[in-house]
Amino acid sequence: MRTTSCHLMFSSMLLAFSATASNENFTINSNNELQLLSADEYRLWVYVGTPLTPNDMNNGKAAFPEFHNVYIDPESFAHYEKTGEFPDGTILVKELVSVGPKAAVSGQGYFQGEFIGLEATIKSKNYFPNEPGHWAYFSFTSPESRKLNPMAKAFSTESCNTCHAAAAQDDFVFTQYYPVLRDHKGKKK
Amino acid sequence: MRTTSCHLMFSSMLLAFSATASNENFTINSNNELQLLSADEYRLWVYVGTPLTPNDMNNGKAAFPEFHNVYIDPESFAHYEKTGEFPDGTILVKELVSVGPKAAVSGQGYFQGEFIGLEATIKSKNYFPNEPGHWAYFSFTSPESRKLNPMAKAFSTESCNTCHAAAAQDDFVFTQYYPVLRDHKGKKK
Repeated sequence: MRTTSCHLMFSSMLLAFSATASNENFTINSNNELQLLSADEYRLWVYVGTPLTPNDMNNGKAAFPEFHNVYIDPESFAHYEKTGEFPDGTILVKELVSVGPKAAVSGQGYFQGEFIGLEATIKSKNYFPNEPGHWAYFSFTSPESRKLNPMAKAFSTESCNTCHAAAAQDDFVFTQYYPVLRDHKGKKK
Repeated sequence: MRTTSCHLMFSSMLLAFSATASNENFTINSNNELQLLSADEYRLWVYVGTPLTPNDMNNGKAAFPEFHNVYIDPESFAHYEKTGEFPDGTILVKELVSVGPKAAVSGQGYFQGEFIGLEATIKSKNYFPNEPGHWAYFSFTSPESRKLNPMAKAFSTESCNTCHAAAAQDDFVFTQYYPVLRDHKGKKK
């Protein structure tokens, strides 16, 4: 069943988002692992915002010391515009980018350095029936290694989901920090 | 001639980037003014990076106190991947987003607030034959007013172009702060 679903997914992508049986922009294998996402694909998705909590503002020990550039797959973005809700099959990608220079001709500040990590969250009743809101969270990298792993297992519910449930504004997503999502929520209802 | 060019441009967009005579993702009128860009369109373009030079890191008087979310039109991005150069007709859009909250469950930092401005730069030998590199710079808003104007005149060369010429890494574009452009430059040569 999953193999069929994956084939449908790739067909859907090749057809440039024409209507198909699946709106999934990701592949999950029979071990419930997420397959590595291609930067050539998700960098063409819809950018939603960039939170920044650098080490030098967190006593040198930030939990998330990088720029987080966040994208949503275009089909789920279109659905969010039409309904104000994240559909089943939504995927949000978070690229981790190091803090680069702290000064430029434009002034003192924070400037993006290099890509150092890749994470994602997926809403799927089919794959994650027991996760709150059906959201699961993944990382293809670790703070110790910037190497992209070919597969990622979902984190435990406590690792990510609990905090998202408590503090995220809209269905486990921190839309309070993503101005594009706030601006487009239900805009085409 | 310009009217014809604009019609071609719109046809090209409707055809979802199929090959046409024009790759222009903008409209310039007979007074050389740039027509207001639609957020529903450019937010689907390719995101390249977000510089941040907030007031509180610049003695309360930053020249650019907002987050700058920068996008490039997808046809020019594809050309940049193939050749490593920005084609004639390139447009980069800069959305200005206010500094919002400075703390979240993830730590102390900078979080994006609301949209407060819109700027753009265009490379065109046809429209801007006398500008260095054929790049012209526009703003649809001013620091005094967040209202989006329906048209924008190009700034004088001294206002923007001179600094870009002196300090930008790649053909007047600050790619040193745009990791996506650095990573994809000539990637598909």
